[in-house]
Amino acid sequence: MKLRLAVSFQTDEGERFFGEGPYRLLLGVEQTQSLRAAAQQMGMAYTKAFRIIKNAETALGFPLLERVVGGKGGGGSTLTPEGKELLKRYGAYRLSCDQMAERLYQEHFSGFLPAASSDYRREGPGEDHSA
Amino acid sequence: MKLRLAVSFQTDEGERFFGEGPYRLLLGVEQTQSLRAAAQQMGMAYTKAFRIIKNAETALGFPLLERVVGGKGGGGSTLTPEGKELLKRYGAYRLSCDQMAERLYQEHFSGFLPAASSDYRREGPGEDHSA
Repeated sequence: MKLRLAVSFQTDEGERFFGEGPYRLLLGVEQTQSLRAAAQQMGMAYTKAFRIIKNAETALGFPLLERVVGGKGGGGSTLTPEGKELLKRYGAYRLSCDQMAERLYQEHFSGFLPAASSDYRREGPGEDHSA
Repeated sequence: MKLRLAVSFQTDEGERFFGEGPYRLLLGVEQTQSLRAAAQQMGMAYTKAFRIIKNAETALGFPLLERVVGGKGGGGSTLTPEGKELLKRYGAYRLSCDQMAERLYQEHFSGFLPAASSDYRREGPGEDHSA
């Protein structure tokens, strides 16, 4: 049995703007230097990826990506310093959350449900790419 | 800013079988003594609710609901003892997870993102009714 945890950030009005989907997009941009390539890796339409990033930037109040002009394929995107910082912090945060969810599971379900491990070692694409 | 946490249980094969949706259905059955009424409260088709419960029962290996014959409207459903136990334990578990996520958020994002509170006092219907 496995635990799957998703933590998302919402505005006070209840609109999700950051979570597993945007996080994976940022990871992909860091790896590929291209939002288009990052979206493709996730099987996501570029227009959707673009919207997710813009939506997150608006709610956060800082830019996550900046355009790189020229180079192979005529330019791409790179993470801003704030984007890198968010990527780093969220990565550590989700790991901590996964580990604590596993510990709390033991406390709450031990003797009632089988042992379960959280997904926190996961690196492959998850099945939920929405924010 | 708000945090929204979702913890779901998956089989080893990665199929979700319990989480916020099934939990809310069980809560609804406890309140209304009817799966149909519980589904209706959540704006969910009865067939979907039925499938969610059967799927959870199969994965868990014990029944969650039992039929009540007769009475107003010609019978309904009630929670089995295991169903009640699961409801109680999962309710306490999600509360602990929400509180922990809020504490960890402070640790990881303090000074970088605005303070955020988790949704753990939520009682109204959430927007995500899937497992």
